Amino acid sequence: MAAVYPNPSISAMNVDNPLKALEREGLERAMHDLIAELYPICRSITGEGVRETLRLIQKRMPLEMHEVPSGTQVFDWTVPLEWNVSDAYISNREGTRVVDFKAHNLHLMSYSVPARKKMRLEELRPHLFTLPDHPDWIPYRTSYYTENWGFCLRHADLEQLSDGEYNVVIDSSLQPGSLTYGETYLPGETTDEILISCHVCHPSLANDNLSGIAVAVILAQTIASHARRYSYRFLFVPGTIGSIAWLARNEHRVSRVKHGLVLTGVGDAGKVTYKRSRQGHAEIDQAMAHVLKHADGPYDIFDFSPYGYDERQYCSPGFNLPVGCFMRTPHGKYPEYHSSADNLDFVKPESLAQSYELCLSVFDLLEHNSTYINTNPKCEPQLGRRGLYRAIAGQQEKHSKELALLWVLSGSDGGHSLLDIADRAGVPFNQIFAAAMALVQVGLLEECLKPVKAHE
Amino acid sequence: MAAVYPNPSISAMNVDNPLKALEREGLERAMHDLIAELYPICRSITGEGVRETLRLIQKRMPLEMHEVPSGTQVFDWTVPLEWNVSDAYISNREGTRVVDFKAHNLHLMSYSVPARKKMRLEELRPHLFTLPDHPDWIPYRTSYYTENWGFCLRHADLEQLSDGEYNVVIDSSLQPGSLTYGETYLPGETTDEILISCHVCHPSLANDNLSGIAVAVILAQTIASHARRYSYRFLFVPGTIGSIAWLARNEHRVSRVKHGLVLTGVGDAGKVTYKRSRQGHAEIDQAMAHVLKHADGPYDIFDFSPYGYDERQYCSPGFNLPVGCFMRTPHGKYPEYHSSADNLDFVKPESLAQSYELCLSVFDLLEHNSTYINTNPKCEPQLGRRGLYRAIAGQQEKHSKELALLWVLSGSDGGHSLLDIADRAGVPFNQIFAAAMALVQVGLLEECLKPVKAHE
Amino acid sequence: MAAVYPNPSISAMNVDNPLKALEREGLERAMHDLIAELYPICRSITGEGVRETLRLIQKRMPLEMHEVPSGTQVFDWTVPLEWNVSDAYISNREGTRVVDFKAHNLHLMSYSVPARKKMRLEELRPHLFTLPDHPDWIPYRTSYYTENWGFCLRHADLEQLSDGEYNVVIDSSLQPGSLTYGETYLPGETTDEILISCHVCHPSLANDNLSGIAVAVILAQTIASHARRYSYRFLFVPGTIGSIAWLARNEHRVSRVKHGLVLTGVGDAGKVTYKRSRQGHAEIDQAMAHVLKHADGPYDIFDFSPYGYDERQYCSPGFNLPVGCFMRTPHGKYPEYHSSADNLDFVKPESLAQSYELCLSVFDLLEHNSTYINTNPKCEPQLGRRGLYRAIAGQQEKHSKELALLWVLSGSDGGHSLLDIADRAGVPFNQIFAAAMALVQVGLLEECLKPVKAHE
Repeated sequence: MAAVYPNPSISAMNVDNPLKALEREGLERAMHDLIAELYPICRSITGEGVRETLRLIQKRMPLEMHEVPSGTQVFDWTVPLEWNVSDAYISNREGTRVVDFKAHNLHLMSYSVPARKKMRLEELRPHLFTLPDHPDWIPYRTSYYTENWGFCLRHADLEQLSDGEYNVVIDSSLQPGSLTYGETYLPGETTDEILISCHVCHPSLANDNLSGIAVAVILAQTIASHARRYSYRFLFVPGTIGSIAWLARNEHRVSRVKHGLVLTGVGDAGKVTYKRSRQGHAEIDQAMAHVLKHADGPYDIFDFSPYGYDERQYCSPGFNLPVGCFMRTPHGKYPEYHSSADNLDFVKPESLAQSYELCLSVFDLLEHNSTYINTNPKCEPQLGRRGLYRAIAGQQEKHSKELALLWVLSGSDGGHSLLDIADRAGVPFNQIFAAAMALVQVGLLEECLKPVKAHE
Repeated sequence: MAAVYPNPSISAMNVDNPLKALEREGLERAMHDLIAELYPICRSITGEGVRETLRLIQKRMPLEMHEVPSGTQVFDWTVPLEWNVSDAYISNREGTRVVDFKAHNLHLMSYSVPARKKMRLEELRPHLFTLPDHPDWIPYRTSYYTENWGFCLRHADLEQLSDGEYNVVIDSSLQPGSLTYGETYLPGETTDEILISCHVCHPSLANDNLSGIAVAVILAQTIASHARRYSYRFLFVPGTIGSIAWLARNEHRVSRVKHGLVLTGVGDAGKVTYKRSRQGHAEIDQAMAHVLKHADGPYDIFDFSPYGYDERQYCSPGFNLPVGCFMRTPHGKYPEYHSSADNLDFVKPESLAQSYELCLSVFDLLEHNSTYINTNPKCEPQLGRRGLYRAIAGQQEKHSKELALLWVLSGSDGGHSLLDIADRAGVPFNQIFAAAMALVQVGLLEECLKPVKAHE
Repeated sequence: MAAVYPNPSISAMNVDNPLKALEREGLERAMHDLIAELYPICRSITGEGVRETLRLIQKRMPLEMHEVPSGTQVFDWTVPLEWNVSDAYISNREGTRVVDFKAHNLHLMSYSVPARKKMRLEELRPHLFTLPDHPDWIPYRTSYYTENWGFCLRHADLEQLSDGEYNVVIDSSLQPGSLTYGETYLPGETTDEILISCHVCHPSLANDNLSGIAVAVILAQTIASHARRYSYRFLFVPGTIGSIAWLARNEHRVSRVKHGLVLTGVGDAGKVTYKRSRQGHAEIDQAMAHVLKHADGPYDIFDFSPYGYDERQYCSPGFNLPVGCFMRTPHGKYPEYHSSADNLDFVKPESLAQSYELCLSVFDLLEHNSTYINTNPKCEPQLGRRGLYRAIAGQQEKHSKELALLWVLSGSDGGHSLLDIADRAGVPFNQIFAAAMALVQVGLLEECLKPVKAHE
């Protein structure tokens, strides 16, 4: 099963104990270092590269590695043969490697079948991929489910090639093996889960998606060291086939997933972007919108669409899980996307750190969001005699604490969560939560066990 | 009953066979020619002019003529006496006709009672109608349900009249007869109907409403030659009393009307305008909004109001049928409205053709709009092995066909029609429909027999 | 119980008899005179000042005075000791009064406990309140529920005080007595009530809230002299504790309150402001929005928030009454708020009159708003033969009366009130109401006894 990380402080859990973010500088370095360490590995949807990646993650957090044998049926899909590469190149008559997998693993199209051929440039061309608009970048191409082979190269290099004959060598293997994914389960007070998923199938591409892996790892470390109401499940899966395999194997348990985020492309310098779940108004959607609204800086939120990352699977109509996608510049909207320019310089330590902090704020909000009932619903309670209201009245009004208390009392009718109240009041959640805790303390508020979601 | 036009190709019906518009040039000529042929006829809500009009329509399409006798009670109304005119004029002492019905049938107020009088200009004035702001135009006036008589003339001509005595002659008849309307029924695969209604009571006015008649006739010709799911009913009725008479006689069957359009003023050069049905969110309203959004050019959509054309009757609260009104510049919003300036030059062949094409697109959309169910709702199906997905991935994204497939799979949960999905995806209906048909073909989609309209 | 004002003309009640506003000039003078008469009185939440205020109101309208003994439990609160003051001052060594309650009753913090002390200026300072930004204004401060004493003074005067010793004298009493509030009940045809509430606890402050009292008094006079469907209840209560006391004593009857307004700060020159009830879409909210939209001049409407006046109590979740707050510039949004600058010059006769007229328009609308049923729902009725439609047709359209008739017929399906119809039509309520009455007269409309609120 999933690696089970102990929940060290449940007994000492204090509901108003926030998920505290790590200190900025160490955080930035830790994430960028992890990306740098993972960057050279040749990953694909199967193979040793994924295993090596997961082992490096295991050095930082408990992680269970799962193997799904080639040929396993997972819903409409079949787990493919395992792909590994020892060498691949194109050499000219002089024996010089003009394209060399060992120089950059993007040079070989992923899942290229083994080949040993002599070909003239004209015959080769259909197997060569370049980016004419960015002649110094190597593109990234895959052919997972159709037998094929190919090389990706700088357009500038292609233009230097003479017409003669070339030697094509692909020492790859496509053999029965398995698909590998990693899973960590951090149990909380309840079995209700928050799912964090990122893909681990891309080779030397830093933002897409080593950035997601790095943020997920540090999130897991942080969450593991705090008491928590929710259980957290971290998935490190090959894109599409990996999440499908996990869903197929866990179909009976997915109803536990109450909130989820796919993390992808969270390291570039662009603004934060959130793509809503297919449900559109799930609590994760509301929480993310709230956190982004009250955080500094620009952001975008857009509606679900069925193209993107593994939210495609989690949100497929048969599951329709409340899983959104957290990213910075969306895929395909930056020129470096799926090219060698998505490198270590492209991911910014401060972007990684901000992405981490925003996700943590969302989880912290979800941990503390509940629906309460005002125990004194007829007229306001006398807050003054409980020390919750200023003694001398009549002054100009800047009493955000008192106002938060009044919002909580007014809104806590069993049909509105603290987040609903914070949104209506237009104030950050933590102010409303602090007010709620103060009211619980004096007995004016009780958690509502059967909230009725009001029609708004 | 209604003329029944055979549905020649039901057995060969192919759901993805579009209602194909006629070729532009012949179309424009056919419509303008019909308007020119109908223009000189003196129509009113009853009388020979209506019959002559319907007979000319019958030369182009099968049409049943219905006669409803004077005195027949139709809901709150009574079919009036039949009105016919042989001659009408005002002549001066010299015997010169200064206002002459034979020169332009707008000169006589519709339903003017017979008269033979000698009157001085001052006595005549309350019976004379002009447009002082447009001194060269003849206005259009009616007095159907109050006994009266009057003449309409150019204000410039009125100002030339000397003060002396005039001879008023109205050789009209108001006698028991009948109200005449035309009806054509084009049966489809189902008895669910699309209603197209236009009024045929206006004399020499080209846009209001010979344009509606012309577009309806060519629509009927086009639809008759295509296989169709829906049955179509075309009504050519005198305004108000005609639609009321039809509703009174067909009360038991109106529930078959699933969508409807009143066509009026569809030939002027102004932009297209759609007035929603009283329901406001009926499928016809959604379909028209979709077609107009994705068509070229400016348009207006506005909410139902209870003033206008026969949609007033179809949408009365006791029927509340999903019938909108399709027009160009709304009635009363162009100065030529209800005057002799609404003539053959005022209706533009290209406007008529565009109106026709837009209506046909709406009907085509309605023909093909259904709710489907994704038969593989858990995770995406593997489209690649069905030939529906590109073999080599990783490239920049311009895959509108694949995206349409994903939208259909994601949206087809039994609660959303293809039109709902197209609207959410923001793409033209035909792309979504083509994707749906491709998915049906490979068994990934099935029509949903009991769609549940989701609350959005 | 409440003073019962006879409803003189119920038998002669005519539903289309509007609540007619008083003539402007006398009205402005009557309200400003009342404010001037009440201005010098030292009011607080208990004490003789409230009684004197209510007695002056009783000269203008029947009013029952209620006494709630000190120590009475009212929900979470306890009625405090009664506070009265005979004298209070600070004098210097020479015996000169440097701060004197008798010069302005704002000089003494409300509910100051009795004191006789000699203190140096440094010791005195924590008990002195000024407005440094407005050095010539005296602030208003209270300490109802915490034993304390204090003086409020002009900052300019504070700066003149020398460092020496001062004599503090507060001849106040805090003794078992009672809280006093006033209540008037104007019975209507039904026991459904409209509640008008204003606070009477502020000393020499003109806008906050003598303006509310003045408008309420004249409203009561006007309403008392007209037949009415609703019963009206006017409350003149000390803020917070007074409305809580009333709610506690009338808990079993509050469900009769169908609409309500808290009137406060209705005399300043600022624009009209309406704060919605906590329900947000109550009929009072819709009616006020309609009246303000169709009235001349600027206005603001904002959502409920739990800070403000006695709507805090009426709208507490255990009651959630449809009570909004009508004001001009909101509390705390004008610098004169809670200072001696909120004086007789600050309240404008024309603002008071406009506030009165708007409230009266809202009550008039509520009196006449009902849901009707079109008795001829299938097609339009023939309005012409009932004299409700023009005889000669075809002219340009400016027929607002006919259009209003059509809107009422179209909208009166049992699911929409006349106000709903007026809002959809975008025309003033009185046009729609007049049309409805004309249709009732000819039998085409009947009041709907069981309206079903349509989902819109």
